[in-house]
Amino acid sequence: MSKEIASRKEDYSQWYNDLIIKGGLADYSAVRGCMVIKPYGFALWENMRDVLDKMFKDTGHQNAYFPLFVPKSLFEKEEQNAEGFAKECAVVTHYRLKLNPEKKGSLMVDPESKLEEELVIRPTSEAIIWSTYKGWIQSYRDLPLLINQWANVVRWEMRTRLFLRTAEFLWQEGHTAHATAAEAIAETKQMLEVYATFAEEFMAMPVIKGVKTPNERFAGAVDTYCIEALMQDGKALQAGTSHFLGQNFAKAFDVKFSDKENKLDYVWATSWGVSTRLIGALVMAHSDDDGLVLPPKLAPIQVVIVPIYKGDEQKKAIDEKVSELVKELKGAGVKVKYDDNENARPGWKFAEYELKGVPLRIGIGARDLANNVVEVARRDTKEKKSYPMEGLTQSITDLLNEIQKSIYEKAYSFREQNVTKADTWDEFVQLLDEKTGFISAHWDGTGETEDKIKELTKATIRCIPLDNPQEEGRCILTGKLSKERVLFARAY
Amino acid sequence: MSKEIASRKEDYSQWYNDLIIKGGLADYSAVRGCMVIKPYGFALWENMRDVLDKMFKDTGHQNAYFPLFVPKSLFEKEEQNAEGFAKECAVVTHYRLKLNPEKKGSLMVDPESKLEEELVIRPTSEAIIWSTYKGWIQSYRDLPLLINQWANVVRWEMRTRLFLRTAEFLWQEGHTAHATAAEAIAETKQMLEVYATFAEEFMAMPVIKGVKTPNERFAGAVDTYCIEALMQDGKALQAGTSHFLGQNFAKAFDVKFSDKENKLDYVWATSWGVSTRLIGALVMAHSDDDGLVLPPKLAPIQVVIVPIYKGDEQKKAIDEKVSELVKELKGAGVKVKYDDNENARPGWKFAEYELKGVPLRIGIGARDLANNVVEVARRDTKEKKSYPMEGLTQSITDLLNEIQKSIYEKAYSFREQNVTKADTWDEFVQLLDEKTGFISAHWDGTGETEDKIKELTKATIRCIPLDNPQEEGRCILTGKLSKERVLFARAY
Repeated sequence: MSKEIASRKEDYSQWYNDLIIKGGLADYSAVRGCMVIKPYGFALWENMRDVLDKMFKDTGHQNAYFPLFVPKSLFEKEEQNAEGFAKECAVVTHYRLKLNPEKKGSLMVDPESKLEEELVIRPTSEAIIWSTYKGWIQSYRDLPLLINQWANVVRWEMRTRLFLRTAEFLWQEGHTAHATAAEAIAETKQMLEVYATFAEEFMAMPVIKGVKTPNERFAGAVDTYCIEALMQDGKALQAGTSHFLGQNFAKAFDVKFSDKENKLDYVWATSWGVSTRLIGALVMAHSDDDGLVLPPKLAPIQVVIVPIYKGDEQKKAIDEKVSELVKELKGAGVKVKYDDNENARPGWKFAEYELKGVPLRIGIGARDLANNVVEVARRDTKEKKSYPMEGLTQSITDLLNEIQKSIYEKAYSFREQNVTKADTWDEFVQLLDEKTGFISAHWDGTGETEDKIKELTKATIRCIPLDNPQEEGRCILTGKLSKERVLFARAY
Repeated sequence: MSKEIASRKEDYSQWYNDLIIKGGLADYSAVRGCMVIKPYGFALWENMRDVLDKMFKDTGHQNAYFPLFVPKSLFEKEEQNAEGFAKECAVVTHYRLKLNPEKKGSLMVDPESKLEEELVIRPTSEAIIWSTYKGWIQSYRDLPLLINQWANVVRWEMRTRLFLRTAEFLWQEGHTAHATAAEAIAETKQMLEVYATFAEEFMAMPVIKGVKTPNERFAGAVDTYCIEALMQDGKALQAGTSHFLGQNFAKAFDVKFSDKENKLDYVWATSWGVSTRLIGALVMAHSDDDGLVLPPKLAPIQVVIVPIYKGDEQKKAIDEKVSELVKELKGAGVKVKYDDNENARPGWKFAEYELKGVPLRIGIGARDLANNVVEVARRDTKEKKSYPMEGLTQSITDLLNEIQKSIYEKAYSFREQNVTKADTWDEFVQLLDEKTGFISAHWDGTGETEDKIKELTKATIRCIPLDNPQEEGRCILTGKLSKERVLFARAY
């Protein structure tokens, strides 16, 4: 191996960090809780962003950009939202530095540059956006307003983890305004579907669609819909949320519209977002003890070609053949890299691209050239097989499709095996500790019980699945009557 | 007119603001000095970004993302850079808000959340990036490191103007590391060429390439290269800069590499950037008293089709024809919009798309349908002409190319007419006040003289053009000997 990584059994958490750092996705930074997204990781994010952006535009949304700063007086207008985020807000209080007279070459905050009103760095943009929408919406003709923003946000988290929880992260946030509650709810659900489709078809990561309990709702929302995924250590990960905000923000920012009958009403709102956290989910969904396993549809490099040769003559012959092949693959839309770096041996490269999760590796040597074949290795199954040069582009695109399908199925079957019913408290606790995964259990519907279960077990209600079968039962903690099961798990 | 805008003669500055606000590019925000980029303006930025991003990737650069925050101790390490930006830094001092016990529903900064070390919001990212590069660069094999970042930055400006100067703005910043000075200088010049090509070929905006005087250099740079454009009011606008940073940042952050002979040396650096300011330049370069004039290669909508009809039957016939046409145009890569909104009359739409600078407008009525023709109006020249439906897609793409060329030529000829030589102080002052534009004059090469000229006239040295002819003369202010002319102007 080029770089040693921990195994999942040995230390799951270290394995995850090794994949991120040694796989070249991100690095720690000099700023507490913030990370650097390295080129390979950022290329992955760009691929995810481009797919999502197209899905948003295809559903009628446009991009815009709103300020990073939210004046405190605006931030506090929607009380639930403000209180929900108050504890993790980075605050700008001054706008100038000056030379420190007591320490040469050092700067200090200029006390004379204190702002009259503090500026909160957006942890989410409802406040600044709805204060703007007030000027944009007067009549039903201005609705729906379907806007998305790609931006950085800051939430001052105490415990951070690369991609999964960082003080600053990149995301998109959709903010839409509608004339009716029904239309806003339809939008909320539509965007949940977009996220689920993205997760399953592009990330190859099965998700459960559901609704959050009141305790777990976004601060300021009437309803929070979510997609939940299962990681290989049996912990759940919230991968995207879509909120029906009712008229809460319209009331807080006084955004009214006149309908066709000229009657005034508050506007109905939604917001929805996914973030660079998805990269963390993607890493944990498919990777193994040898490194990353990336889905072909999002991989920055789908195919790497490594030459195996002795001497310049062999190299030259391989170069010529590869040059044709690269051209053909690129023409077919395949992201291919020819790594003929002379400073590294083939074995080192094999390990390196395995670590980086490149779906297919093509090895090509002098003998292959003579036989007009190449050796193709699949990252996911480690299978190696010889393919004729003739029709190779088709074989490669077929293989990429097969890998995409196959890693989804593997993750799906893992998820299916890890949704377990519990009917008693003992069963519940045992499952949580031994089998892990999602536990489907009855709950009495109260926030108190939910809190108590969390306190006792660290498990939370991940969601009430959409189209949940109605079934009578008794709450695993209190024994009170319940009319449906909900999904519990320990979560990221 | 749908919306009244000031004329350039009447009030140039108001004309500019009207174009931005009424043209739907941006809006003021609730945050001092920050603006909201509206969907139409953001679509323009996306088009600019996509072209530039491809140019960067084609020249071997990769994107990455570094933290928004720079700890003060890192920020101050490169002294020149730190001092240059200190006066306009937004500073985060606290990380939490709490309920204000003295005012219900209000929040206050929690004094207990004061940071041990203040965080500067990046006004530019050299400091945070070079503190990271230290960990990435050990050997010549790690070089060159060619990285770009698309990000928001904050510079607390006292006087702000939409797009041209805002407290927060969007930009890209390239940060590269090299083994030799020559290589870094070549990179600096290469990126200047990329910017010039982008400005001229895509923005249709002629630029002068040059070098800044020491007074006007980027803080921390050894040399700053720039592209300068001329606006219609005769003021210059710096449209992009590319800096050769020497070993300044490598020394400040102790970034050394071992060369092939295993000798240690500091790394050589460049940085280069363009920002949403380019949108302001684009607006002022081509627009007229009726609104925006956008270059076809960057326009969010290249062609708008407006139906002119009476009754449903005519509308239906037009719809059918337009539906074919739209399909064909889209197939040819033309960005086309069919505006059949029933709530607005054709005349209103004509004015609206004129204001928004859509390069071509197609009007289609019942009579046109009968004659198998359409009326095409050019935004730039206001010419209207009837075109046969047969071969229309080709006519449209030809026209778009012609407009792109024609607005460049118009701007180029304006610029050429507005570079004037001055040989005496009186001539210089008179030209500045009456003719405006770039003034080519001798200067004695000292910062003092440059400052004095600025103080007396508000004119600055925009650049020393590349390949400047060497010519003896005497400084317009001091009469001292000079060996080349430089370009002065009042500037944005």
